[in-house]
Amino acid sequence: MNRPDGRQVEQIREITFQPGIAPHATGSVLVSFGDTRVICTACVEDDVPRWMKQQKVKGGWLTAEYNMLPYSTLQRKRRDISVGKLDGRSSEIQRLIGRSLRAVMDLKALGSRTVWVDCDVLQADGGTRTASITGGCVAVAIAMNKLLAEKKIKQSPLKQLVAAVSAGIYQGEALLDLNYPEDRDAAVDFNVVMTEKGQFVELQGSGEEDVFTAEEMASMVSLAQQGIQQIVALQKEAISNADQADETSLQDLAQAFNFRK
Amino acid sequence: MNRPDGRQVEQIREITFQPGIAPHATGSVLVSFGDTRVICTACVEDDVPRWMKQQKVKGGWLTAEYNMLPYSTLQRKRRDISVGKLDGRSSEIQRLIGRSLRAVMDLKALGSRTVWVDCDVLQADGGTRTASITGGCVAVAIAMNKLLAEKKIKQSPLKQLVAAVSAGIYQGEALLDLNYPEDRDAAVDFNVVMTEKGQFVELQGSGEEDVFTAEEMASMVSLAQQGIQQIVALQKEAISNADQADETSLQDLAQAFNFRK
Amino acid sequence: MNRPDGRQVEQIREITFQPGIAPHATGSVLVSFGDTRVICTACVEDDVPRWMKQQKVKGGWLTAEYNMLPYSTLQRKRRDISVGKLDGRSSEIQRLIGRSLRAVMDLKALGSRTVWVDCDVLQADGGTRTASITGGCVAVAIAMNKLLAEKKIKQSPLKQLVAAVSAGIYQGEALLDLNYPEDRDAAVDFNVVMTEKGQFVELQGSGEEDVFTAEEMASMVSLAQQGIQQIVALQKEAISNADQADETSLQDLAQAFNFRK
Amino acid sequence: MNRPDGRQVEQIREITFQPGIAPHATGSVLVSFGDTRVICTACVEDDVPRWMKQQKVKGGWLTAEYNMLPYSTLQRKRRDISVGKLDGRSSEIQRLIGRSLRAVMDLKALGSRTVWVDCDVLQADGGTRTASITGGCVAVAIAMNKLLAEKKIKQSPLKQLVAAVSAGIYQGEALLDLNYPEDRDAAVDFNVVMTEKGQFVELQGSGEEDVFTAEEMASMVSLAQQGIQQIVALQKEAISNADQADETSLQDLAQAFNFRK
Amino acid sequence: MNRPDGRQVEQIREITFQPGIAPHATGSVLVSFGDTRVICTACVEDDVPRWMKQQKVKGGWLTAEYNMLPYSTLQRKRRDISVGKLDGRSSEIQRLIGRSLRAVMDLKALGSRTVWVDCDVLQADGGTRTASITGGCVAVAIAMNKLLAEKKIKQSPLKQLVAAVSAGIYQGEALLDLNYPEDRDAAVDFNVVMTEKGQFVELQGSGEEDVFTAEEMASMVSLAQQGIQQIVALQKEAISNADQADETSLQDLAQAFNFRK
Amino acid sequence: MNRPDGRQVEQIREITFQPGIAPHATGSVLVSFGDTRVICTACVEDDVPRWMKQQKVKGGWLTAEYNMLPYSTLQRKRRDISVGKLDGRSSEIQRLIGRSLRAVMDLKALGSRTVWVDCDVLQADGGTRTASITGGCVAVAIAMNKLLAEKKIKQSPLKQLVAAVSAGIYQGEALLDLNYPEDRDAAVDFNVVMTEKGQFVELQGSGEEDVFTAEEMASMVSLAQQGIQQIVALQKEAISNADQADETSLQDLAQAFNFRK
Repeated sequence: MNRPDGRQVEQIREITFQPGIAPHATGSVLVSFGDTRVICTACVEDDVPRWMKQQKVKGGWLTAEYNMLPYSTLQRKRRDISVGKLDGRSSEIQRLIGRSLRAVMDLKALGSRTVWVDCDVLQADGGTRTASITGGCVAVAIAMNKLLAEKKIKQSPLKQLVAAVSAGIYQGEALLDLNYPEDRDAAVDFNVVMTEKGQFVELQGSGEEDVFTAEEMASMVSLAQQGIQQIVALQKEAISNADQADETSLQDLAQAFNFRK
Repeated sequence: MNRPDGRQVEQIREITFQPGIAPHATGSVLVSFGDTRVICTACVEDDVPRWMKQQKVKGGWLTAEYNMLPYSTLQRKRRDISVGKLDGRSSEIQRLIGRSLRAVMDLKALGSRTVWVDCDVLQADGGTRTASITGGCVAVAIAMNKLLAEKKIKQSPLKQLVAAVSAGIYQGEALLDLNYPEDRDAAVDFNVVMTEKGQFVELQGSGEEDVFTAEEMASMVSLAQQGIQQIVALQKEAISNADQADETSLQDLAQAFNFRK
Repeated sequence: MNRPDGRQVEQIREITFQPGIAPHATGSVLVSFGDTRVICTACVEDDVPRWMKQQKVKGGWLTAEYNMLPYSTLQRKRRDISVGKLDGRSSEIQRLIGRSLRAVMDLKALGSRTVWVDCDVLQADGGTRTASITGGCVAVAIAMNKLLAEKKIKQSPLKQLVAAVSAGIYQGEALLDLNYPEDRDAAVDFNVVMTEKGQFVELQGSGEEDVFTAEEMASMVSLAQQGIQQIVALQKEAISNADQADETSLQDLAQAFNFRK
Repeated sequence: MNRPDGRQVEQIREITFQPGIAPHATGSVLVSFGDTRVICTACVEDDVPRWMKQQKVKGGWLTAEYNMLPYSTLQRKRRDISVGKLDGRSSEIQRLIGRSLRAVMDLKALGSRTVWVDCDVLQADGGTRTASITGGCVAVAIAMNKLLAEKKIKQSPLKQLVAAVSAGIYQGEALLDLNYPEDRDAAVDFNVVMTEKGQFVELQGSGEEDVFTAEEMASMVSLAQQGIQQIVALQKEAISNADQADETSLQDLAQAFNFRK
Repeated sequence: MNRPDGRQVEQIREITFQPGIAPHATGSVLVSFGDTRVICTACVEDDVPRWMKQQKVKGGWLTAEYNMLPYSTLQRKRRDISVGKLDGRSSEIQRLIGRSLRAVMDLKALGSRTVWVDCDVLQADGGTRTASITGGCVAVAIAMNKLLAEKKIKQSPLKQLVAAVSAGIYQGEALLDLNYPEDRDAAVDFNVVMTEKGQFVELQGSGEEDVFTAEEMASMVSLAQQGIQQIVALQKEAISNADQADETSLQDLAQAFNFRK
Repeated sequence: MNRPDGRQVEQIREITFQPGIAPHATGSVLVSFGDTRVICTACVEDDVPRWMKQQKVKGGWLTAEYNMLPYSTLQRKRRDISVGKLDGRSSEIQRLIGRSLRAVMDLKALGSRTVWVDCDVLQADGGTRTASITGGCVAVAIAMNKLLAEKKIKQSPLKQLVAAVSAGIYQGEALLDLNYPEDRDAAVDFNVVMTEKGQFVELQGSGEEDVFTAEEMASMVSLAQQGIQQIVALQKEAISNADQADETSLQDLAQAFNFRK
């Protein structure tokens, strides 16, 4: 089987992380899954949501916001504030990002703080939600390391890494990490969120207004598991590099941002 | 293992369908999964959304709206219009209901019509989204049969039935069709949407800010498959009864609405 | 004169009350005025509105919300949250319901509590606002009796019952309790809210963009006074029955919900 | 009985009409009922609402908007756009104004036009809704006369005048045209809208969260009928003066507002 | 060069101030620049914005709201609340008014108070923003004098007066204080806000989607400086008159508005 | 005088343009004025606004949207959609950007198209509006060149370049291109928008709630004129480079994105 961009069925796209994209955030990274690029940031605030205060819940909170920038799509997408309400799909995705990241956080260890994870899609080419979770986790890791370095916390509340990848059924075959042309034509859209230890966090499979079989599901989950392992390795490298960023060579930066074809 | 309400792990709650709850809708049913009760209706309009006209897409459309009535929860829930925006969770659920029902509809065969599926939760005791999909499908079936009877269409656009059920991990064991106390304490929330032929339509598993294993997933999917078969049989009976409703005995009506304990 | 449904001019429609329709509310009832059906609930919260705290007003508050479910009308009605604002007519009606019920409440005796009265129209066939007030009062009575039974209050803050009924001029003659076809064609729309002692609480007469005479007004008010007496008797019976609900026969339930024609 | 401002029980406040307050409107008037002052305007547009076009209804439409300017009340009132939604009371009042004025309009004779009646309260001292209806009718009359003068219509669509006045029970006695201190302390708030021929258009009586008797109602209606007759005479004079404004009162206008033509 | 209304290039329109237009405001004035008329009011509240409390900023605040009444324009303008959002141009203008007035206020001397300046345009004929600033300053001055008279403050927080005027390039020549027909056809729109001492507060020049030269700018600024001097003299007279209103101008006021005290 | 970052009073910050930052836009650039970074894009749509169709205006339109990304500021800024309305300052700035760019566009030559200019601030360090206009013009130029290359238009509708820069009075001296610490402490905020031919397009000077003199204004305008000349030269180079982008060296990319300190 030939994928439109020449990849193998089990091959993920080139995944890169460019830390420091938004210097005012506590942690930030520009994540790319092929031509899908998302600005992921983690801003730490010394306050918790009102409901936590009212219910006297100890510890902190993590919440996520997801947004497609108007020029991220082939046809310009109207801003939510112009439409007058939050996009339904965005609302669904940001809830998923928040749940996924909270699953690997020790919120008690965070103290009375809120971590705001923002995911703004700069370029959409399929898999923006999985890129957002994956990049969001890196941004959180960098932010937590910064709090550690500043001695605001004693140990990182991030218990382990979490990453996500998509799979689908395309022309009858299970594929890993679909880009937009594959996603558009795929019969099934499967998103898997897993920890670095191989535990499931979230699993969302949709026939995209069609149906799929148990065998197809098994194939997709298996591909996803393999993909996540590779992605977690890349996350670890990125987090490690970010901590040594002053030494990062210009060459790396240039490669990371090589947007033009 | 003892479930709080005495059921077996693989046992679904008592599921009933009361057709005709909203006589002005084309089709309607009050669905109960135990103490979870949802008013599900299907209203057919002779018009299609603007985007279909602009993009000149043939056929019809089906869209769903989900809403929790303020008194459906133990603590009164503010109406969306008072809060000023659509509840994020409701937005996510109504998108799921719409996708699930469109997966079993032949929208071309529907003609230039829109089916509005409304799911208003009267009483929430866990599993409102699965009850909504299950009841929504029955409401659509009744509505399509009415169009057939009125000779507006030649064959039902509903290709097959779709039903949904939840599963979860509770005290380390996989359970089917969780009620609210089980859902609140469960480690994992799994929702499975399947067709009457046993195909998957949607699969959503969330660790609920925790994680789960591949084995746990397999157990939950297996339980859900068994549950769906039973539910589809009940749906068929309800649809058949609705078509013969004039003969339905008062006795059945009374049993269906026996809300008081 | 022949009314479309064969009633006498001074004859109210069959009015029924089905208590317990929404078990999570403190008190609830499904009220029917003929084919008009409204879910009326009263939820008691242990809190008062912010303005009462700021102005240091003693006692409690009662507020009402009125909503037509999308499938209650012959043509599906868009939800307020989809339109983006509260329907003007709904706003007017819920203010009327609130004022009417507060007129018979001793808010001081309620303590620092808020009673939320929700009226959701399940099926609209004329007179939804009068059915809402009438059913809302029954729901409040049941809720207050529940607080009494739980010994949260010493005497019911509901000083007396309040009920409402419509009247109109149809083909030159005054009619009581108009259904939708009568209402649509009537020259005048008159709504009377009275207490069980026969005092007026609210009176709203509209020429419906036409005019009416003092004699016509007198006829309508007189009809309404007679109707209210009958309705109050039915309210009392319903409240009494609700308190003995465990003994209620299946037969009554069936009759109450006999939706299908 | 002594009224706070020394009036007799059946005495209306000084009522004045200053035409031409908003020269860009087709017709306009500043109406005063004592210290209550409302800018009432009628703007005629050569278009009809979308629903009339869709339903192919012939003729024109009249719609009203009511608004309290922020500085009209003793405590500054926040603008609706700052609060984020239309004030419930304003919504109710503007619906009443619209119905009242449409009751005396021959909308067919208006042609395919919309009359926008705007009532902005400059100073509130009780009775703003009755002042708005009364002043709104004068603004419409002036606007219709302008259309006649411009030969856009052949006869005025305003069939007769409509006016409104309040009454109430204050210290056990029925009073006419309550100002704010009386209204605040009154047990009942009664608003009567009548035509110049003495027909009722709208009647709204509220116990203001209290009750009232049939006798009290009769007294208030009787007072209102007397008041309306006087008000209609003042309306006629104001409309007549406005039509001769170029000849007679330019001098007065200039002094009042320095309004140049 | 002939201006449409016969003025000289450096001639301002007739500017008048009618104090007391909104008696419930602490200070109020109806300002006219020719046919442009704006109701300007200043309401003083004994409270400060939440952000001042949170940041523990001492003193008071002044904020402005600008609004075009629907009938102020030749074509009726929809209200913001009907459109659903604050008009962008209004938002920009009210920010300008607020900044301009705060520039001449000693907010510390105001004490823990907020001055709400409301500018509602009754008739728009060009220069509504400059009329609003000019009239707004007079309303604030009157309000501060009232606080002084009531001994709530010891000295006026208004350090000096501020006024505004427009200029533009019309048919190649710089003109002062453009009316609507001039403004519509002008190549440049220049607004200058200055203090009575001749200092600049705000300067906004827009080519109105065209360009202008440094020489043109110099001419416009020079014209504006001359105009402001004349306007400040008129402001002073108006403020002085307003303070003696009980003695001198009651007669005039009565004729103008029939405003009773 | 020593500026906080060591610049001369007349020295602009390092200004760079990174084209191609958002490949799905017709033209895009990441513009930096020192640490202020803004994503500027131009998306061309084959449609015009409704008002142009209704008023039958020939040609095209250009409109701008400005937005601060939540992580662009030192304290995270809430998204407009969360607050529920467009930020007033953003509204004002996007109107300025739109007017500035339309001043140098031949909208007739654009044909029936809309150019959407989006400016999303990635990092705010003072001067975001001037960076947005400057970068927006480059994005439009690139987009117009792309339309030319695709032979959709015959000549570029961009008549000449437009650029913007800020000036201010800081410690009594006029400074060019203020960064955030200077801007925060400056007495005056002056923004100048000029064409490459040296014509003014917009001029906005605000005392920032203080005042300034004619001499100070002259100094600031003079500095701005010098700055704009330098900026235009950089714009031209960037536009030229973008057209030869395939040859751009990695080294340039790296320098452009050198975010980390």
